Amino acid sequence: MSESALQTALAYHHAWTGHDFDQAMTYIADDIVCLAPAGRLDGAAAFRGFMEPFSRILLRAELLGAFGDDTSAVLFYDTDTVPVPGAPGAECLTVRDGRIVELRIVFDRVPFEAARRAQAQASTAER
Amino acid sequence: MSESALQTALAYHHAWTGHDFDQAMTYIADDIVCLAPAGRLDGAAAFRGFMEPFSRILLRAELLGAFGDDTSAVLFYDTDTVPVPGAPGAECLTVRDGRIVELRIVFDRVPFEAARRAQAQASTAER
Repeated sequence: MSESALQTALAYHHAWTGHDFDQAMTYIADDIVCLAPAGRLDGAAAFRGFMEPFSRILLRAELLGAFGDDTSAVLFYDTDTVPVPGAPGAECLTVRDGRIVELRIVFDRVPFEAARRAQAQASTAER
Repeated sequence: MSESALQTALAYHHAWTGHDFDQAMTYIADDIVCLAPAGRLDGAAAFRGFMEPFSRILLRAELLGAFGDDTSAVLFYDTDTVPVPGAPGAECLTVRDGRIVELRIVFDRVPFEAARRAQAQASTAER
């Protein structure tokens, strides 16, 4: 395949931020290894179980930096999500034959955990 | 200045991960804007107050991705630190005249907060 890693990474990025996760998964290798803040995820199903819920709460995505070469790419973006506005993230992706075989993702879980706690408290108060 | 943004970003990275923060600061603009997980920092002094303490607890840094063009660069790296092993981070840097004028940094604060709580509990238990 002649597409560069950056092209594959961008195609994946535009698909999931465009809320088309079926399309996003066409760029994911069956045996993808994803290294996320909460730990390692093995395989496309585990990866989808992690990223698709995030794509559902996405309100806005802005790509701030996107670079790469034939085999790897780095994306840096900002997002607004339903629970957390202004949640930046970055990915370091390795691509083989047009599919992402490794994806390291980094973001700050602190505001998401704070939003979850606030939501849990609000639910308790409603009872 | 003819140096690319990536060269400046890498020179900064190698200086701070090499524990030479005086050298690292030669690549930082006086009016740098740093967008970090805890919020915005304005100016070189505030930036140094944030990053230099982190450089002191650094045990290992490994650059996983580094790309850029004339004006901006993205770095993705893994680190081991005294309180937290395996703490990846990413930076999106804007460079003007050989100095970094904007630096967005993303990392997960959760393991650092957990280490701080464990340390505080250990200190209390010792009393």
